Amino acid sequence: MRSAILSVGTELLFGQVTNTNTVYLSQKLNFMGIDVMHHETIGDNPERMKQVMHRMLDEVELIITTGGLGPTQDDLTKEMAAEVMGCELKLDQASLEKIKGYFDRTGRTMTENNVKQAWLPAKEDGIILPNNGGTAPGCIFEKNGKAIICLPGPPREMTKMFEESVLPYLQSKTNDVIFYRMLRIFGIGESQLESMLEELITGQTDPTIATYAKEGEVSVRVTSKRKTMEEAAAAVDAMVEDVKKIIGDSIYSYDDEDLKDVVAKKLMEKGLSISCAESCTGGLFAATLIGVDGISSVFERGFVTYSNEAKEAELGVRHETLEKFGAVSEETAREMTAGLKKKTGSRVCISVTGIAGPSGGTEEKPVGLVYICADVDGNIMCNEYKVRPVSRNWIRSYTVMLMLNMINRMI
Amino acid sequence: MRSAILSVGTELLFGQVTNTNTVYLSQKLNFMGIDVMHHETIGDNPERMKQVMHRMLDEVELIITTGGLGPTQDDLTKEMAAEVMGCELKLDQASLEKIKGYFDRTGRTMTENNVKQAWLPAKEDGIILPNNGGTAPGCIFEKNGKAIICLPGPPREMTKMFEESVLPYLQSKTNDVIFYRMLRIFGIGESQLESMLEELITGQTDPTIATYAKEGEVSVRVTSKRKTMEEAAAAVDAMVEDVKKIIGDSIYSYDDEDLKDVVAKKLMEKGLSISCAESCTGGLFAATLIGVDGISSVFERGFVTYSNEAKEAELGVRHETLEKFGAVSEETAREMTAGLKKKTGSRVCISVTGIAGPSGGTEEKPVGLVYICADVDGNIMCNEYKVRPVSRNWIRSYTVMLMLNMINRMI
Repeated sequence: MRSAILSVGTELLFGQVTNTNTVYLSQKLNFMGIDVMHHETIGDNPERMKQVMHRMLDEVELIITTGGLGPTQDDLTKEMAAEVMGCELKLDQASLEKIKGYFDRTGRTMTENNVKQAWLPAKEDGIILPNNGGTAPGCIFEKNGKAIICLPGPPREMTKMFEESVLPYLQSKTNDVIFYRMLRIFGIGESQLESMLEELITGQTDPTIATYAKEGEVSVRVTSKRKTMEEAAAAVDAMVEDVKKIIGDSIYSYDDEDLKDVVAKKLMEKGLSISCAESCTGGLFAATLIGVDGISSVFERGFVTYSNEAKEAELGVRHETLEKFGAVSEETAREMTAGLKKKTGSRVCISVTGIAGPSGGTEEKPVGLVYICADVDGNIMCNEYKVRPVSRNWIRSYTVMLMLNMINRMI
Repeated sequence: MRSAILSVGTELLFGQVTNTNTVYLSQKLNFMGIDVMHHETIGDNPERMKQVMHRMLDEVELIITTGGLGPTQDDLTKEMAAEVMGCELKLDQASLEKIKGYFDRTGRTMTENNVKQAWLPAKEDGIILPNNGGTAPGCIFEKNGKAIICLPGPPREMTKMFEESVLPYLQSKTNDVIFYRMLRIFGIGESQLESMLEELITGQTDPTIATYAKEGEVSVRVTSKRKTMEEAAAAVDAMVEDVKKIIGDSIYSYDDEDLKDVVAKKLMEKGLSISCAESCTGGLFAATLIGVDGISSVFERGFVTYSNEAKEAELGVRHETLEKFGAVSEETAREMTAGLKKKTGSRVCISVTGIAGPSGGTEEKPVGLVYICADVDGNIMCNEYKVRPVSRNWIRSYTVMLMLNMINRMI
């Protein structure tokens, strides 16, 4: 099946919002084996809407629209889709009651223009998609093997409606089921990963392998489309084993989890208390880990010892060490961790010192130089890293990933 | 002038990347008074590219394309634009030298396919746009009052090229100049802001006023298009005065700066040392402030005292206070700040305790309850906030904004 995505909204043409709906829909459709031929964004202009829909239908079997389902005069996507498909809209009492109920629950009065949202395709022309996150229902128009699916614009409402109603609808249209695993990887670049997996990627039919890259991390998606879920899952898992043989240790999740979640889960499961001392990351390691709900059961103390004075006073780093080796040195990192261990007694103690830039670098100690030292139950590891000096914030974020990765390998 | 934006790249149709280029370009074009009629995204398909470009040119005077300028066989945007415009490409020696230089500098060898990037419009057909952030130059084809501007896909390269070369080009095409100010506001919701400014917004011609909302913050853009920069700036500044009369204190920047940058700049200018103690934000306040380069001159120490034990040991919060009022209470926040002041002597001391959720809330102390206490040179302010419990991370980020806002008003 081929598809096209039509986003309706003047705010998109003004650049006031980023179109994340197309990203979400493109991913979902591709996962299901539905080709996405193109995306188009237009304003609230009824003539243009019709024109674009007609043109798209010449080429694809499925159009998904987002936006323009609301109560205002400008919201005309559903009306134009009905016209293009030659379908009629009728006032749907059940949907109207639901909209009224929504206003009652949120303590507001429903104005007359909201009734418009309950005009929806008659049973013979299509399907009504309930909106469980807002007022405007969505709908599907079907005719002659073609379909237009109209979804609301706000991403939270749109994704909810897609998961609850559109996904089962599209699945019912195909005899195949899709299963996939997203492998998350740290420590390998995208091009390196591609060449490592080249043999597996070349000549792939099913399962397919695709690589994704974002901010210093890479992912591998292994997808299979088969007659049953069992078949698809078995095919994916066999391929994952092959991938594992090649990149093994660098995979930290087989289920698309963030590294911080993997590490937090392990710490909580094993009941390992943790404390940290940060210089260049300035609290970002603690802030990242504390982003995980429930972490309070293991996270004990964090220190942002940005100044030399703070390193001495809080962690007992020796003045001579700072003088002789400098704040950014393995010796300082080592003493930071030792001091942290002494002070907190946490089973996992990790500290970091480095140069985040853009200022402060020297030839000997350039921007991006980072030392990380961890102590896990007396087992100590200290490493030097030369992080690519993309920007201050990139260096800090990447350093946090290095810290999480070190802990993940040690525990 | 009317325009359309064409994004080329199969990765966009797969949902592998979010299209931020269209957001950036739409904002820039609208600011300049150039209408954006629609966005379209297609894959690396030469026939479709030509088809779309022809269709767009029937309707607009300017097409901006992004993507498809690279060295591979698939990269054909420039070639198709030349064909559609009836222009020729020639090998540009200067561009070729620059590409070679780029490879030399980054220590890689240039493969033969990279030469393709130096085939660019001849002088009579267009303009070459140097790429100062990558290898692929951009270009402008001009004919019969229409233009196609081809820009690279990677956002960093694209925005750099736009600022350096496209902006001056487009400005030279119009007799008007645009001046705008972006006012950043904290503490007022978008709909409240709109009703406060309704009288100014209604019937606006020039300057225009537009409001933007993102993650708990709102912005107001005041834009004027006049014959000279002086006229435009004067008109904007007069309107800004009117806006100021209405929302006054809530404006923290008149030049689109982040609150963290405003606060960091003030601290650095005044030489005010700062330390912080965080519970629910877990290091995010320190991490946010330390995101600003140069902050090491004033940032002294940060404590992540997530557990009660840490609050007692590091900040001297009394055991009885924690027992009697709980960790999330004004009393605890007050003692955290007092302890922090005693320990660090920093001129600005700020601490926070709260419930970030999703677990841990009670009827009496619900998720989102936050206490912030700041001491600036002995001047103490302690506030209770009920942050909207959107999500754990939203509460933490919003709390950091509340902390920055408190400091900004106190110093």
